[in-house]
Order: sequence, then C-alpha cells, then structure tokens
Amino acid sequence: MRIEPVVGAGLREQFHEVRRLSEALVAPLSDADATIQSMTDASPAKWHLAHTTWFFETFLLRDHRDDYQLFSDDWPFLFNSYYEAEGPRHARPERGMLSRPSLDEVRDYRARVDAAMEPLFGRPELVGLIELGLNHEQQHQELLLTDIKHAFSRNPLGPAYREAGGGAAPSADGIGWREHPGGIAQVGHGGNGFAFDNEGPRHRVLFEPFALADRLVTNREWADFVEDGGYRAASLWLSDGWSWVKQDSREAPLYWRDDEEFTLGGWRSRDDDAPVTHISYYEADAYATWAGYRLPTEHEWEVMAQGEDADEGCQLDDPEEADSFAHPRGSAGLFGDCWQWTRSAYLPYPRFRAADGAVGEYNGKFMSGQSVLKGASCATPRGHSRASYRNFFYPQQRWQFTGLRLARDL
Amino acid sequence: MRIEPVVGAGLREQFHEVRRLSEALVAPLSDADATIQSMTDASPAKWHLAHTTWFFETFLLRDHRDDYQLFSDDWPFLFNSYYEAEGPRHARPERGMLSRPSLDEVRDYRARVDAAMEPLFGRPELVGLIELGLNHEQQHQELLLTDIKHAFSRNPLGPAYREAGGGAAPSADGIGWREHPGGIAQVGHGGNGFAFDNEGPRHRVLFEPFALADRLVTNREWADFVEDGGYRAASLWLSDGWSWVKQDSREAPLYWRDDEEFTLGGWRSRDDDAPVTHISYYEADAYATWAGYRLPTEHEWEVMAQGEDADEGCQLDDPEEADSFAHPRGSAGLFGDCWQWTRSAYLPYPRFRAADGAVGEYNGKFMSGQSVLKGASCATPRGHSRASYRNFFYPQQRWQFTGLRLARDL
Amino acid sequence: MRIEPVVGAGLREQFHEVRRLSEALVAPLSDADATIQSMTDASPAKWHLAHTTWFFETFLLRDHRDDYQLFSDDWPFLFNSYYEAEGPRHARPERGMLSRPSLDEVRDYRARVDAAMEPLFGRPELVGLIELGLNHEQQHQELLLTDIKHAFSRNPLGPAYREAGGGAAPSADGIGWREHPGGIAQVGHGGNGFAFDNEGPRHRVLFEPFALADRLVTNREWADFVEDGGYRAASLWLSDGWSWVKQDSREAPLYWRDDEEFTLGGWRSRDDDAPVTHISYYEADAYATWAGYRLPTEHEWEVMAQGEDADEGCQLDDPEEADSFAHPRGSAGLFGDCWQWTRSAYLPYPRFRAADGAVGEYNGKFMSGQSVLKGASCATPRGHSRASYRNFFYPQQRWQFTGLRLARDL
Amino acid sequence: MRIEPVVGAGLREQFHEVRRLSEALVAPLSDADATIQSMTDASPAKWHLAHTTWFFETFLLRDHRDDYQLFSDDWPFLFNSYYEAEGPRHARPERGMLSRPSLDEVRDYRARVDAAMEPLFGRPELVGLIELGLNHEQQHQELLLTDIKHAFSRNPLGPAYREAGGGAAPSADGIGWREHPGGIAQVGHGGNGFAFDNEGPRHRVLFEPFALADRLVTNREWADFVEDGGYRAASLWLSDGWSWVKQDSREAPLYWRDDEEFTLGGWRSRDDDAPVTHISYYEADAYATWAGYRLPTEHEWEVMAQGEDADEGCQLDDPEEADSFAHPRGSAGLFGDCWQWTRSAYLPYPRFRAADGAVGEYNGKFMSGQSVLKGASCATPRGHSRASYRNFFYPQQRWQFTGLRLARDL
Repeated sequence: MRIEPVVGAGLREQFHEVRRLSEALVAPLSDADATIQSMTDASPAKWHLAHTTWFFETFLLRDHRDDYQLFSDDWPFLFNSYYEAEGPRHARPERGMLSRPSLDEVRDYRARVDAAMEPLFGRPELVGLIELGLNHEQQHQELLLTDIKHAFSRNPLGPAYREAGGGAAPSADGIGWREHPGGIAQVGHGGNGFAFDNEGPRHRVLFEPFALADRLVTNREWADFVEDGGYRAASLWLSDGWSWVKQDSREAPLYWRDDEEFTLGGWRSRDDDAPVTHISYYEADAYATWAGYRLPTEHEWEVMAQGEDADEGCQLDDPEEADSFAHPRGSAGLFGDCWQWTRSAYLPYPRFRAADGAVGEYNGKFMSGQSVLKGASCATPRGHSRASYRNFFYPQQRWQFTGLRLARDL
Repeated sequence: MRIEPVVGAGLREQFHEVRRLSEALVAPLSDADATIQSMTDASPAKWHLAHTTWFFETFLLRDHRDDYQLFSDDWPFLFNSYYEAEGPRHARPERGMLSRPSLDEVRDYRARVDAAMEPLFGRPELVGLIELGLNHEQQHQELLLTDIKHAFSRNPLGPAYREAGGGAAPSADGIGWREHPGGIAQVGHGGNGFAFDNEGPRHRVLFEPFALADRLVTNREWADFVEDGGYRAASLWLSDGWSWVKQDSREAPLYWRDDEEFTLGGWRSRDDDAPVTHISYYEADAYATWAGYRLPTEHEWEVMAQGEDADEGCQLDDPEEADSFAHPRGSAGLFGDCWQWTRSAYLPYPRFRAADGAVGEYNGKFMSGQSVLKGASCATPRGHSRASYRNFFYPQQRWQFTGLRLARDL
Repeated sequence: MRIEPVVGAGLREQFHEVRRLSEALVAPLSDADATIQSMTDASPAKWHLAHTTWFFETFLLRDHRDDYQLFSDDWPFLFNSYYEAEGPRHARPERGMLSRPSLDEVRDYRARVDAAMEPLFGRPELVGLIELGLNHEQQHQELLLTDIKHAFSRNPLGPAYREAGGGAAPSADGIGWREHPGGIAQVGHGGNGFAFDNEGPRHRVLFEPFALADRLVTNREWADFVEDGGYRAASLWLSDGWSWVKQDSREAPLYWRDDEEFTLGGWRSRDDDAPVTHISYYEADAYATWAGYRLPTEHEWEVMAQGEDADEGCQLDDPEEADSFAHPRGSAGLFGDCWQWTRSAYLPYPRFRAADGAVGEYNGKFMSGQSVLKGASCATPRGHSRASYRNFFYPQQRWQFTGLRLARDL
Repeated sequence: MRIEPVVGAGLREQFHEVRRLSEALVAPLSDADATIQSMTDASPAKWHLAHTTWFFETFLLRDHRDDYQLFSDDWPFLFNSYYEAEGPRHARPERGMLSRPSLDEVRDYRARVDAAMEPLFGRPELVGLIELGLNHEQQHQELLLTDIKHAFSRNPLGPAYREAGGGAAPSADGIGWREHPGGIAQVGHGGNGFAFDNEGPRHRVLFEPFALADRLVTNREWADFVEDGGYRAASLWLSDGWSWVKQDSREAPLYWRDDEEFTLGGWRSRDDDAPVTHISYYEADAYATWAGYRLPTEHEWEVMAQGEDADEGCQLDDPEEADSFAHPRGSAGLFGDCWQWTRSAYLPYPRFRAADGAVGEYNGKFMSGQSVLKGASCATPRGHSRASYRNFFYPQQRWQFTGLRLARDL
C-alpha cells in the first residue's frame, strides 16, 4: 500500500498494515532460520523485526511519550543499526550470535511497541516521523527476503522459504526502444507524498537525446553472454570489475548452478524469458559493453518513468496474498522485477542537506562509493517505490534483486 | 559412567546412557541456540548431536547392516567432521548456516539411528567400534558445553545456559608438592579397558626427579599475576605468546570482566579460591615463568596420576543430575576442574601406528602444532578420562576448561 | 613544457625534454632507493623509468618499425602496467622484488629506445601516439615523486630526496569567493592540443549558481579542524569515511607528526599558511561539512578555470631547475600546489567511447569507484594540466599531493 | 672454522675470519639486491650485515667499553632483531624499506665496530660473549644466503647469485640402515667448546631400538612421490599439513619448476641423485608415511651423530673459496647438504634455564610451535655445527636448505 497517511485512523490503519506484513513475511521461518546471518551485508530476520520496532520505540515513543518505559534497557544496544548519534551499538557482523532474544520475544516486543504507539497517531507533528518509520520498515521487508534467500542458499539442503507459485515469464521478444529527445527536465521528488531526503531537492537536468530499452535483459540473453566468454574477456570489464571476477573465479550471476537458479522456493529450473537478476554493477556494465549499449543514468531512467504506475508488477502485497512472490517474471513497465543498475554514482543532489540529529543519518552519509538503482523489485512492498526513488548499493553487491535495462545514445 | 561394555545388554545399556546424556545437555537450548556457531573452532550444539549420530550411522549401521537405509542421502555431507576418507564434506566455518535441519529433526535422526543399532549390540566384533563411538560422543558432550558457553558469551545479554547451583570453592592454601624420585617408569595405556589409539603403545620413560603441585593455580593467584603486570612483561612470555598477547591486547583469561567471569550460569562474581580456567598454553607458560616454576611434562603428570580415581571431582554425571555443573570448584586430586596444560607437544608415542581407514584419522593426523593436556575438567563426562588420556589443543586455544598445575625440578 | 608537437624537429625536441626530466628526477636516488616499493599503490622509481620506456617500445617501435628488435624478451612482462590486451604481466605488488635489472641497466634501456625512436618523429600518423606517450610519461613523473616520498616516509631515518629550497607560503587571509551565476556552459576538452580521451566529448552542462573559494584550505585551518575534534565526530563523516578513520585510528593528514610534516626534503616544521595536502576524499568531505561548505563538482571547478593559465604556480620545470620543488606553497590561481578533490565520481562523459586496442585501456576501464580531482600539484610537470584535465583516485588514497578548495551554493 | 677462541690473538683472528666471510658473501650483491625483503621470514642482506654488527656494538662495545660512542643513535632501533629487553625496534616486515643506509654505509659501520673491538679480545670475561656473537653471525651467514635465494626466486628474470661450479651428485643407491640397539645414552652438549644454551643441559635419554638411513632422500625419490600423487592423497598428511597443501595448491618442493629447480646459480636442471631440499616438515612427514618409514627424533639423530666430523661435506668455507657452494650434492655422513627435519618439537631440555638479560632471549623464547632440525646444510659455515646443535623452524617453513633422512623402528 502506498503510505499516504491521514492523521488519526488512516495513519493507524496504515501502521498496522505495514507492521502485519513484516510478521507475515516471517511466518514461514523457524526461530533458528530467523537467527542466522550469512554474511556481514545481511541481517537475521529476527533482527529486522526488532530493528524496525526499535526505530518506532526510539524516535517516537522514547522521544515523544514522557511516560514510556523501554521494553528493555539492553535491547537498544542490540537493535540500533548505524545511528552514531544514538550511541554505541552491537557490531554488525555479530548479529548472527543473537539466539536470544527468541523470535517470540521479538514478537512480544513488536506487540508492546505497537500498542504503545496508539496515542501518537493523532498528533499531526508526528506524522512525518511515523511515515518515515513505515517506509523504513518497508525497506527492511525487502532486505528480510533477500537476506533469508542468501542464508538458505548457503545451506547445502537448499531449503525453500515458501513453495512459490506462479507460472513462467511471458516470451521476451527483441528489445524495443523508448526515445527521449533531450533538453531540460526536472528530476527529484516534488509535490506531496512521502519521499526520502535523498530524492530532493527537485532540480533541472540537461539531457542529450537517448533511448531506453522497453524491457530488462533476460536469462536467455545473459546465458548467451556467458556462452560467448563474457566472464573471460577482460576487455569488457571495468578494472575493478575484472579484479572482482578473477578474485573468486566468478562465471555467472549469484545463485546460478548449471541450468538452475536458487529462489525463495529453493533450487528451480531457470526461466529463460525471465529477467536476469542478482548481478553486480560490474556484471551489468560488462554485459552492456558486450551488447554494444550502455547503462542509463539515473536521470534518464527517472525522466522516462515519470507518470508511470510504480506498483504495476508489484508482487509483495497484503499479507494474505504474500505467498505469490518474490521472483522476477517479466513485468511490463519500467518498475517491477528487479532494481536496475544505473551508471550514476550515488551523490547528493544540488542543495541537498541532511536533517539534523540521528534521523539525518538515514541517507546522506552513504553518499560515496555506491551506485544508484532505479525502479523496484519483485520483493518491494506495494506502494514503496516511485520514479524519484534512489536505491543504492556497492558495485560488487548482488544479493538484492538487481537487474539491467539497456540504454543508448541517439 | 566408565564405558566397559559387555556384549549384549550391558553394551546396549551403556549406549543409551551416553546417548541420553547428550540429549539432556541440549535440553536447555532452543533451536536457535543449537544452531549458531560463534567461531570456527566451535560447532553448533545441533551439529554435535547429529555428528555423533552420523558416526554410528556410518561406521556401524552403513558398514555393518546390509539392510540399512540412510536417514538422508544429504546429511552425511553435512555431518562428517574431518574424515577425508569419507569424502567431501561441508566446510567447518559454514556449520552455523544450518538452520535446517531443525533441532527436532536431528532428534528424530538420533531416535532412528538408536533404534537401528539394536541388532548390533550382540555382535562381539563390533564392540570396539561401538565403544569408540561412545567415547567419541563423550568428547562431543564436553565440546557442546564449551561451545555453547562461547556462543552465549558473545551475546551482550549474557544468557545463562543453566542456573548453576553449587557453593564456593574451598579455601585454597599454599601449594603442597608431590615428589617423584626419578628413574624409569611406564606410561601409556596398558591392560584392558578402552583407550584411544594415541594413548599407546605403553612404553618406558626416563624421569629426572621432580615435584608436582597438589592443586591448580587459582583465580586469586592469577589476579596477582595480572596485577603484577604479567600481561605487559615480554620477558615472561614465549615469543609466539607475546605476539598473541599484543595482537589483541589481551590482559586476562577468556571470560574475565572486571571482578566477574562468564559461566554457563551467565556472568558471575569470580571465586578467588577456584582454579583459574580458560587460559591458553602461552598464558600458562608465562604464569609458570613468573611464579618461578614450570609446566609439567605429560609423562610427569601421568606417572603421578597412575592409580588415582579419574572420576573424583567429576561433575558431569547422569542426566538427572546434569544441572550441578560445569564450573571449576577446587577438587582434590589430580583430575577434575580443568584440563591441565603440559609442556609436551602432542606427538606419536614410539611405535604408534594409526589404524587403517577413516577411523585411523581419529587422532594421528593431528600430531603437529598442538600441546598435550592431562586430567579432565568439570565438563568431562564421568568415566571418560584416565591417567593415560591425552587431550590436545593448539597453544592459543582457551575456550575449553583449561588450567594450570605447576611443576619443578628436584 | 606544454606538449604541442610539430612533426619532425619540434616533436623530437619535446620528446627528449620530457625524457630528460624523468632522468633528472631519478638523479638523487641510489639503485636501492629506485628499487623499493612501499605499498601496492606505489611503484619503484626504476619501474617508472622502465614502464614509460616500454610504452614507446611497444606502441611505437614494435608496432611501427619492422626492423626493431626488443631490448629484452623478458622485460615487457615486467614493465607492462595494466594493459590486458598486451598479455600477462608481473603482479603489481611484486614490483619491489626487482633488484635486477639495475638502475643503470634501465638507463641503458632508455637510451636504446630513445635512439630507436629517431626515424619515427617524422611520421605524421604517429604524432598522436608519441604525444600520448609523452603525456603518459609526465603522469609517471608525478607518481615517481609521490612514490619515493612515500617510500622515504617509511624509513625511520626520514631521508631527504632533495634538500628543498624555497621560502614560506605567503600569509593566507580569509577566503574570498568567486561567484558563478549558473546556466548552461560547455565543459570537456575542445579545440586543438592534446587531451586524454576521458576529457571528452565536450558537452553542455547546466549549472545552479555557486561560488568557489579563491584559495585552498591551509594547514592552519586543518589544525583547527583537528583541534576541534574533527577526527572524532562521526556526524561529520561519510559512513565509509568514518570506517576508514576508525580502522587505523587516523587523526591527521598523511605525513603529519606533531608540528612537523614529512616532505621530499625530509621532516620539516609545518608551514601554517601553506595548503594542507595528502588528504583523502573522506577527509576533504568531512572538513567541508565541518566548515559549513561543500566540495565543488568537477564541472563547477572546470567552468571557473577555463581560460586560466594552468602552469602558473608550476614547480616542476626543466631539469636544471628541478630542485626547486615539490611542496605546496600557496599559489595564486586555481591550478598548482594540490590536486583538488571534487564531489564528482569519475564516470564517462556523455557519448564517451574508449579507443580500440590496448591504448583504449588507458582511462575508460577505471571509471568506477574513484573521484575526480582537478587542477595540478606542485609535482605536476609544466604543461601537463589544463582546465579539462580529469585526475582520479580512490577516496581513501592520499599519497598524492591532494588538497581541498571549498564551494558553496548561491 | 670451528670457533675455539683463545683470549687475545687467537680470538682476534677468528673474529676477523668470521667477519670477512660475511662480507665475502655479500660481494656478488648490488646495493639494491642487499635491500629487498621478499617475505617477512626473510631479511635483506644489508640488514644481516648490520644486525650482526649491532650485536657486537651493543653487547660488547656499549656494555663493556665506557668510552664507546654509538656509530649512530638511530641505528640500534633499525638493527635490533627481537630483543625485547633492548627496547622498541623497527617492525620486521618493514626491513625491506631501508634503502638507506646504503650497503657502503653498512660496510663502514662494520669497519668502525671491528676496529673498536680491538681492546676487548684480551679480556677473558668477554670471550663467551664474543664467541656468542661469532656463532650468531654464522647463523646469519646461512640466513643471508637462503634469504637472497628466496628474493632472487621471486624475480621473473631468475638472476644468479653466483655462477655455481661443482659437478653432479654421486649416484644414490638404495638406502642402507645404521642400527641402534636402544638403551640409555646421553644427549646434549657437554664438555668444552661453544654451544648455544638450548643444547643443554646434557642429560640421559632412553631409546628403543631403531635404525637411521645412511643418506638423505633424493630428488629422484621425491619425484616418485609426486608422480604417485603424494600431494593429492590426504591420508598421507598431517591435518595441518593437508590444509597447507590445499591452501596454495602446493605440489612440489619450493623452487621446483618442471624438471628444473631454482638455485643460487639461477634456474638449473634438477640433479636426480642430489638430496631433495626446501621441503616443509609437513612434506617430510608425508613422504615418510608414503615410504613406510618415519622421521627420526632429535635424540635418535644425535646419538648416531656423536663422534662424527660435523664439517665433512661443509661447503661454506673461507672467503677465497666461498664460490664453490651452496647446493646439496649428496655428502656422505650425517651432516651436510640439508638440515634434517626430526619428529621432535623444539622444547627445553630438562633443567634448562635461559640466561638473564637480553642475551637470554636468544633461544628459549622460541620454544613453542617449532620443530627441531639436526645436522647442517650446504650453506652452514665450517665449524658452526655439531651433534648437539638444535636448529628449529616452523613446520611450514621451507626456504632453508631443509631435507629428510628416514628412520624406522627395530
């Protein structure tokens, strides 16, 4: 659901919908599943549940209810993620050591905090913070899925998170191109509705004429790249990318094994027509070079997406239907299936200024070394994305549902 | 219980007693507790339960029951520890990724294997292998306790495995010395009863006159060493030990924090009269140098212990009483409380020859780089140790219940 | 000298001037000095001399003189830097193992190649390649100086490369601001004269109004930042930068020690009025945040520099005067003293396309993870820089003469 | 020469002979050759020259000549190796950064210290320290050769230290066995003559009957082991050894390449009859297992060697002939060619006590984690070794001239 809260009942309802989805996502997991951490980039499912709750407890309840007693004096240390202004915290690589608290204790924590939020929904000055907390939780919903996928992929038994339903992707034809004549246009978030601070200020950008592919690169096309020696041809790769390839003798996207790929439903036969996913920026760039095209800039993507329905193709919906996901299936439209690597480095927009205090650490401090991804993925909650959304990861990271849409100059 | 099996009912009874103790030890743990792995040296509790079962399944059921069907075709890959002859296996540092199988599934595995063992107790030619399997499981019972202690110590909440009972250690007086006049004596296992291959062959050793302390070094004495700058005086340390100290700015035994220490009952006030534990070989050696003594050799220790009751001071008994442990309390006698570092490198005895096949990998291949420890600890199952027992760890390892008994020349 | 070669005598003269400067720069070094490699980022002086010669031998003599015999069949393996298309090569971290060939043998190599170049100066189709080789060599001249500075800084004796002359920097007053009204302007190389491929194509950029400081940040100002706890305040730093600070407990620019700094003349008292140098991107960004300003974009810097004399303030001149450098002294103008970190990631300009073949690896493949620096430094050869020049380094690198010029929005 | 100094002229003569040999060994090296450090285990040749001089300057001149002025106040920091009691020192891995002082400056240092030693040869109370200093320098002579061999092996040009002369090894027949009946015998240094502290006290040892091979294992035999899959059969290896093999995909001794090996004379065809060398303890142990034998203990080796001429087969003689080495050639006798790995851990002898002060750090503090090697090698100076000599290295180290002599039980 798109979070467009109205003070009072509307906000309360949205709050509970978002919170329920998190719990529904954890339903298939055991306490043990929800405890393990498969790499430093990932966090345990239990941690996601608790951290998103800590956000509300800290920035809403503690700061705005005089009578609020912390659920536990020890837990804030455990469940602060990276907010330096909130003091010392548990080291990220240690999150997988937390067999305690148990998943059920974390659920109690959530219930206690949810209940304590009740008097705050009617206070207009808190709407912005509550919205931020809900959008924050939606981001962790997606991470929760990609993190558990990674954890399960490390288990030689290849367990399934859920038996995924859904049919094959529609046949992917040749690429069609959507053209843009160039000129000056506005990008960045404007108008009403929630947006993260990094999406603004809205500002003018000068474009040269370009074209954007009307679909993502598919598994079939990627297999051609592999077959053609793409992972062995240094000339196709950025220098850092080539080091990355050689360092671990990489030769395919994450989760590929022969003709299979690992999914949230376990190991499955790969669907040739579906979009390729779990690729790094380096791989996306090398493929584009091989194909004779390039990656779009973040602004090129955004200017083409303005006005599109960002939820078309969204698979992660209300809790009851939450089992019909999360796997790329070849959506129409620019959004959906996979976050799309752009050529743009994640940097501040002109006149960007981070908020004061801990909340100001939300986005700004990550503005070095990462690349912008646009769109949304099969694991993005409904209502969470928009054209101005700027997702960002390091160029070697690929455990998110990342994919590739080609661009070219006109 | 000391394992002295008689073919048939006696063997069966011992088998089930040992197997029950393992399960009793895991009773306080959740599935999540039993899943996490806090370092490469340690293994998850669940893994210990399954691996000891794999031993019986592989070397008894698979090899000696034609009609036996493996519980799972995939599990042997997961639960082989280090037997190269048994083929490829799951990497040790990955054991903490196994949220599946669940603890309950592992319990089912145990029940299935236990039942399938039934026809084998009556076959005399298998007694030796079954004994080996039971002694093997006893070793893992101790590891299970030290591994979960380590895992819980990494949790900032400091959870207790069990609320430990038991009073304070008796007052530790000055050291008394047990003297040995030197000469030739026999060491190594001889006669009947089970022993590991590394305890033999029994052979003659020439001794110079020496004396052995009648008790272990205590926490109070160790605190004096710390207070006196023991961890800052390079001259007391072996060169490797000094590097080890500086590398992580070490300044106390593992699990010390101010006046407390971490125990299986959580953080507790340190008992000054109790034996110091969780020290490395380097620390033991530095302390002995500081105190003006030395570590005993493994043979010195053994020759003094011959004839002593190895179970005196044993805390890890039958399942019903299993909660009255595992913490050093100042036992009389040479055994008990802590495994005692000796100056002896872990090397083969004269004419030692490892057995053929996978079982031959049990001990011999570890004979480099490690030091021998003698005695038993508060976490050693009753009946498991003896004077000829040779425990061994790397000099920097200290997550076992390791301690120190001084020696001197006469 | 600015390289504006004319086919024939003019080109020959420039060739020899550039080549002579390299040799002059190595004159103060012993064979041993020229052999050591202090980190992977740096190369031995001897290697720089040989690699720049390999460039001419490979791309000019081998490819364009049928009768040319390689100086050695083994050396191309040693002195290829990163050209994948030229085949396998010696690993970069191993360069410091090359005590052979000796510095004198490398000088012979240079003489032999220089002589063999003679017939090529008159061939118009080779002018571009020769120009590229000379600009390439100029880049290595600067690296040679920063690399030997780094190597000498690791020697506890603190040797001087040259006794540096020159007086103190002029008094640095308050910052003046040069304003730009915004609008559309052209950036990138256009017109005649040499430029690297990454400086083009020239293209339009849209600016918002901004102002650029009229001088670099000084040592005095940086000392205030240090004094004010700049290196201890997480809120000032990018997240990657804060990790970088904590990882090695950094608390000052590279080469600072109390009130001194290490220079090519050894340890010297720090000049408060001189520009601060040897700072990382992370430090530059944190300082700007602390000061209430920001880094300029590469385009902001460039548009202000268009038309300025890029050689004003240049210290690295002809061989005879080469001893009057290389230390920031507070030049007027935008160029000189220090390469200036910009906020811009090093990415391809619109419609950029790398050349074919090995020479195409010159710049394009480095376009990820690095930041653009503009200007020139006290170690940049005369005639090497220009407004469109794009230097680039990783954000943590600081062994180059890097500095900081503030910007702000209008 | 065996160092058996007589106070006065005899001692002076021996001093100068030893000191001259060091300089002769460095004669073929350039300043650059003498500067590089190819791994942390190794040191630059220049460093060896200076460190051995520092030993005399510190423990003789500084401590025993009131009027002595240090050659440099800074150099002791650079050239102390590991004597904690002598204060802080330059980090070992940084030794390769010392392009300054130059080799010639180090030679001046040697000359200055040698001259200043003059009045000390007549003082009887200093004979022991001077002897220690000379034996210490002899150890570094051997290290200097093995270190420069390692450094040159890293250079793709494969430079020769010296064009080595000498013919092929004599044909190696089947192994003959020298038998020992067992019983009690004395080991350790006794009587007059120099010995290191770790060789004593002399003490009784009890032997079981055994036999020792009358020659070392040859290259031909080792090639059979390789051919037979020795490096691929886990069952032959110690567990630590197998990890070591797999970690770097090892498949032959250090310096083997096809049918060649790297020598101090560069790459040469391998002599099948010569003793295999540059093997780790792990390799020696695996070979012995493969061959059906075992390594000797240090005491077995010593008791057989008592009374033998330790210099038979010595190649490293007086400076004028110093070019006829250092390569294993198949000596008769127990000494010579290669240091021989024993099964014995390097531990203190009964009643061993290190000397007080810095000199006490010479041997004792290394008594953990290492294995004893007996004999001498083709790079051991004449007069340096003896039956009681205990050399020691870590089990993975193999850049010394290490080899293997088999043993078996009787």
